[in-house]
Amino acid sequence: MLTTDEMAGWDDLEWSADGLIPAILQDARTGAVLMLAWMNREALRLTVRTGEAHFWSRSRAALWRKGETSGNVQRVLEIRADCDGDVLLLSVIPAGPACHTGHASCFYRRFALLEEGGASS
Amino acid sequence: MLTTDEMAGWDDLEWSADGLIPAILQDARTGAVLMLAWMNREALRLTVRTGEAHFWSRSRAALWRKGETSGNVQRVLEIRADCDGDVLLLSVIPAGPACHTGHASCFYRRFALLEEGGASS
Repeated sequence: MLTTDEMAGWDDLEWSADGLIPAILQDARTGAVLMLAWMNREALRLTVRTGEAHFWSRSRAALWRKGETSGNVQRVLEIRADCDGDVLLLSVIPAGPACHTGHASCFYRRFALLEEGGASS
Repeated sequence: MLTTDEMAGWDDLEWSADGLIPAILQDARTGAVLMLAWMNREALRLTVRTGEAHFWSRSRAALWRKGETSGNVQRVLEIRADCDGDVLLLSVIPAGPACHTGHASCFYRRFALLEEGGASS
């Protein structure tokens, strides 16, 4: 259980100059990190109200309900804030792949696999 | 195993206008999401070379080796890129708490716990 002074509220959130905050989606069942997207205040309000993840698309400059075309909605069980209040972590139950490529997670590409002590050793 | 066309490289990364990319740290053993911080190219290069997480501090405008003062270094096992190449996911073994507050994860504060169907139901 979290104690009261560990609860974060709207006043504890730090929005970027653009009025956005990054939100990490984590599968509540597997622990897999699925994606990162951006929320403005309205996206967060809609997420809390509906229980489905909403975001702000920076490229389209529009509110976006995840899964509105694909059907792969992300049901949100819990939202956590980090110590600085400038990142959100959403625990979700995905209705389908989080990635538009059809992968369960957007992080399907390996960039580096490190040996003990780093890649140079 | 990842296939060759699922491997991401430097050319596949999308850096922000500020030359930064957000990096999510996930505990390789527990799956817990520990923190999000920002990297510039040099921080990513040092992370790959040394196997310890390096970041760019936006507030201090300085490179920063995680744990350089606390000793709580984050040993990096793997780095993944998302589909758009604008977010990194690091699988790490923490030497100690990731959060400066002493919590294992920076996401120790609950913002919302949602009922089935959202908070309004």
